[in-house]
Amino acid sequence: MTEATLDVVGIGNAIIDLLAHSEDAFLDQHKLAKGAMTLIDEPTAERLYTAMGPVTRASGGSAGNTIAGLGSLGAACGYIGKLRDDELGDAYRHDLLAAGVRFTTAMATEGPATARCIIFVTSDGERTMNTYLGACVNLTADDIDETLVASAKITYLEGYLYDDPQAKAAFHRAADIAHAAGRKVALSLSDSFCVERHRDDFLDLVANRIDILFANDSEVASLFPDTGLDAALDRLSAMVDLAAVTLGSEGSIVVRGGERIKSPAAKVERVVDTTGAGDLYAAGFLYGLTNELPLAECARIAGLAAAEVISHFGARPETPLREYAALA
Amino acid sequence: MTEATLDVVGIGNAIIDLLAHSEDAFLDQHKLAKGAMTLIDEPTAERLYTAMGPVTRASGGSAGNTIAGLGSLGAACGYIGKLRDDELGDAYRHDLLAAGVRFTTAMATEGPATARCIIFVTSDGERTMNTYLGACVNLTADDIDETLVASAKITYLEGYLYDDPQAKAAFHRAADIAHAAGRKVALSLSDSFCVERHRDDFLDLVANRIDILFANDSEVASLFPDTGLDAALDRLSAMVDLAAVTLGSEGSIVVRGGERIKSPAAKVERVVDTTGAGDLYAAGFLYGLTNELPLAECARIAGLAAAEVISHFGARPETPLREYAALA
Repeated sequence: MTEATLDVVGIGNAIIDLLAHSEDAFLDQHKLAKGAMTLIDEPTAERLYTAMGPVTRASGGSAGNTIAGLGSLGAACGYIGKLRDDELGDAYRHDLLAAGVRFTTAMATEGPATARCIIFVTSDGERTMNTYLGACVNLTADDIDETLVASAKITYLEGYLYDDPQAKAAFHRAADIAHAAGRKVALSLSDSFCVERHRDDFLDLVANRIDILFANDSEVASLFPDTGLDAALDRLSAMVDLAAVTLGSEGSIVVRGGERIKSPAAKVERVVDTTGAGDLYAAGFLYGLTNELPLAECARIAGLAAAEVISHFGARPETPLREYAALA
Repeated sequence: MTEATLDVVGIGNAIIDLLAHSEDAFLDQHKLAKGAMTLIDEPTAERLYTAMGPVTRASGGSAGNTIAGLGSLGAACGYIGKLRDDELGDAYRHDLLAAGVRFTTAMATEGPATARCIIFVTSDGERTMNTYLGACVNLTADDIDETLVASAKITYLEGYLYDDPQAKAAFHRAADIAHAAGRKVALSLSDSFCVERHRDDFLDLVANRIDILFANDSEVASLFPDTGLDAALDRLSAMVDLAAVTLGSEGSIVVRGGERIKSPAAKVERVVDTTGAGDLYAAGFLYGLTNELPLAECARIAGLAAAEVISHFGARPETPLREYAALA
């Protein structure tokens, strides 16, 4: 086993976020499921875009946010995701390279446009996401850069990818490459509705190909709908080496074998926008893990990174996160 | 004089902001004048964009920010500014319409691209702006929609427009239309370097065509370089009906004839990014003015709107400002 030259490679849906404030009444009027991630087609994306308020535009995507957070913490990272060679695609690519991330996935020269997520943030800080997957649906196993994946300590997969028809094969190939190189594979369950859509596939994936699992409590409940949280954590601990489960304002709980390490949430003055909370938690946790810090310390950095991102609009850090890394 | 159907029409450079965090060392390395607005050509814009960190993209432009703020407060507004019919232009137009702003300026179908402002925000919250004017330089007197201008209580001009070769004629035409309709004309001095570039023109404009002036203390110092603030305010009071001069963390001072109304700054937990502070001050002040509130009340709403915008990244309000209007 050669030494890893990267800390983490993320694989996910490469999506530009279009964020706007909205009132609850707007969500009702447009029949949007508050707090969820809903897949939409291009005409719906156009319709919602026309109806939405003034927009802040920034690169997003779950694994992309995590990788950007890791870059901000000072980790060496790579990213695999499918963009179209249009303006949004160029913007997304810029932001990856600007964060020092290695990005080698070929951009599509035809087919659907770069993906967009239309996000409505209500005054309680909750985000409601509506994703047009666009070019992302054309990510295939061929896009998995073997050298890149084999060079990273951890390959990080986002569950949302399971909504792409060809991504399952890409997932499996990435996990197999990583394991063959003696590396670890991490997965984020992403969204409880996403877990519901693909529960059996996820259970199979988690049991057979995942070493480290990230989820929140409702995603865990979706994965094991017939049991409570404690029993679900026991089942998880039998399936993966390590699981980090976030509990919103209650903090998080880390599961390793029989161990349960509970950590409080970091203090936040005001929750402005929860977009990216789980993604940045994963970033902080993976930073700690790749630096071989104790699990409680991993969870603490994770909590700080999540607190930074929910205290402002948008899913990526505004403040350089290096200071949190330095605290470690 | 027919009744005004709009509160304010803004005329300015229609610019998309590209914001990123940077360190002071980055500004030094690229020889950027911290805190200033510097005009750059397209190759420099490309070079800075490539060098900059991950980007947040949002509509900007001084008068555009003011009009967006007024829209958020609940005012009825219009905007005149030159966009190209490209993706950034479409985005800018979307944000105007989404804020309920009337926008009728024809988008250019050829020539330079939609303008961009590359903004570096340092950890002290200061912003350093680098503007590629692009399509803005082609705003002419013909773009001044007579009906729109005549229908607004106040026509609001940004000083930055004086950097466009043909904009002076557009300024004069707008002011003449407004005055012929019995309306008021307001000007923001925008930037002390901009004032320096066009001092004599500005002095002539302020003395002869402006009723309401917005400036900060250093812009006033640039306009009257041979005197102190108090004497400068006296000179201003002889030139315009009303002047509102911001003093950073010291608040602002309103000048009307012999009156001087000093207001403290609104409390801000942490100054994250000063981009748009003056623009939103003007928005709050104009909101009060068009609602015939006492000047101290105008300054108070102005301070609240400015405080909102400097407490987060980006030059336009994230929180709906209607609550500040309701306090009035």
